[in-house]
Amino acid sequence: MPQIVQCVPNVSEGRRQDVITQLVNSVRNTNGVLLLDTASDHDHNRTVITFVGDLPSVHQAALALVRQAVQSIDMNEHQGGHPRIGAVDVIPLVPISDVTMDQCRQAAAELAEAIWQSCAVPTYLYGEAALTPQRQNLSKIRKGQYEGLKEAVPRGERQPDFGEPRLHPTAGATAVGARLPLIAFNVNLGTEDKAIADAIAKAVRLSSGGFRHVKAMGVTLEDRRQVQVSMNLENYVQTPIHRVFEVIKSEAARYGVPVVGSEIVGLMPQQALLDTADWYLQTEHPSAPHVLENRLRTDQE
Amino acid sequence: MPQIVQCVPNVSEGRRQDVITQLVNSVRNTNGVLLLDTASDHDHNRTVITFVGDLPSVHQAALALVRQAVQSIDMNEHQGGHPRIGAVDVIPLVPISDVTMDQCRQAAAELAEAIWQSCAVPTYLYGEAALTPQRQNLSKIRKGQYEGLKEAVPRGERQPDFGEPRLHPTAGATAVGARLPLIAFNVNLGTEDKAIADAIAKAVRLSSGGFRHVKAMGVTLEDRRQVQVSMNLENYVQTPIHRVFEVIKSEAARYGVPVVGSEIVGLMPQQALLDTADWYLQTEHPSAPHVLENRLRTDQE
Repeated sequence: MPQIVQCVPNVSEGRRQDVITQLVNSVRNTNGVLLLDTASDHDHNRTVITFVGDLPSVHQAALALVRQAVQSIDMNEHQGGHPRIGAVDVIPLVPISDVTMDQCRQAAAELAEAIWQSCAVPTYLYGEAALTPQRQNLSKIRKGQYEGLKEAVPRGERQPDFGEPRLHPTAGATAVGARLPLIAFNVNLGTEDKAIADAIAKAVRLSSGGFRHVKAMGVTLEDRRQVQVSMNLENYVQTPIHRVFEVIKSEAARYGVPVVGSEIVGLMPQQALLDTADWYLQTEHPSAPHVLENRLRTDQE
Repeated sequence: MPQIVQCVPNVSEGRRQDVITQLVNSVRNTNGVLLLDTASDHDHNRTVITFVGDLPSVHQAALALVRQAVQSIDMNEHQGGHPRIGAVDVIPLVPISDVTMDQCRQAAAELAEAIWQSCAVPTYLYGEAALTPQRQNLSKIRKGQYEGLKEAVPRGERQPDFGEPRLHPTAGATAVGARLPLIAFNVNLGTEDKAIADAIAKAVRLSSGGFRHVKAMGVTLEDRRQVQVSMNLENYVQTPIHRVFEVIKSEAARYGVPVVGSEIVGLMPQQALLDTADWYLQTEHPSAPHVLENRLRTDQE
């Protein structure tokens, strides 16, 4: 299987279509990467670009994007509803296949250094790539946003991991990180009682005593006259889908409520579903090497 | 996702290495196909070649193989322990991804006709490609083997689907078919009592009242002091893995025996495992379009 790293930079431009096109093209025109999605939000004045490739190609594409953003975005004129610290606000690297989290951590550090060296934009490492526990949480780095950070850094606070103690005059700063893919997974319950979905959401999510890598809330599905436990699974390796699903089933049973279905929103790595099949089938060895399509991809390299 | 058809021709040569190499190369050198495996058996005097590609490429590669086999194999001199009717004995086409069984049936018919037209080897359609129910079963076509068929056909019996009423003087005949991939799946039980594995095998297999597409037998695992239900699942669409596994679990429970593990042998299509995950997670829509790796393969076309 080829090495696949997903990269999801968020850039601080969601309104000027010509600028967005230039930014996206800087990724698209880099060899070895594949653009999967672009989503611009006018109110946030922000664009989320999703692309994949091997580590060297992703590095080149992300660097090309920062170079383009430095030329076309002035943070002193930027307004929008989403917190941000720079022209390219965040660049997370996400391991998908044939790449470890350690490799993504290392690649995030190399990218952060290269952005400082070649674009003079100071950079912070966050998430799994953070150098200190405090910086794992992006919101700590982003506190006060561009305007606040611009004042704080020259005062000696929140020093960048790469760069001098002042932000780039127009492009601000960039946070580069590593994280596992988010899996958006919803479980539908055979009841109209939202209190039950809320109670189950509380049972499985970290903030109220549940699993470490689960965010969850109860949602009403008006049309279906059902309720839903709507979740983000932030680490399918440590907190796998099947474990969360089984707890939801057992909690629902306590109220006499059936699980009537589930849905996956967006993309997830094949491995997350193979792990699910392996757990339920009690396989003694991982099934991934037995998937014919995976064999093809290995052989075609 | 690209179209993937698996083709598993069995050729009547398993001893002369130079001939085997020529036969395999005729496949390997065809554009658009990927050779996955070659297995020669000296006693059977037979080689099983496994390759994949899209339908047009598989057609070309199979035809190239037959041409080569006609040149290098004389059935009048062939001896071996496995039933066979020709230099290329059977050519099954197996749908893996982005191709329907109907398309494979049609492709089998086109290949069978092309083999007759361009190599003068008469051909039979079998399995899912059979034109009559009798010919679904390969053993009916192969009865009496090459030597018997050579006599029967000129007498007006078992006429080929393509070709005149006589076999090719040296290459005999070829059976071309379509079938779903076989999945070799074994379930291990926490007991030394082989009678329990035998009883469960009988419960799930077609021949004794079980599922239509399951072959099963009990096996003793001496080293582990356990027994196993060893299976071939011949149609994972109509008789899915999870259904067979759940019946085995419930039959084992009747004897107070736990399922301690399972194993997949060889290759299976990704879809068989996604179907398993979807069933256990009760997904309301198939997960295949949500697998990031599948998205890549589509976009790269």
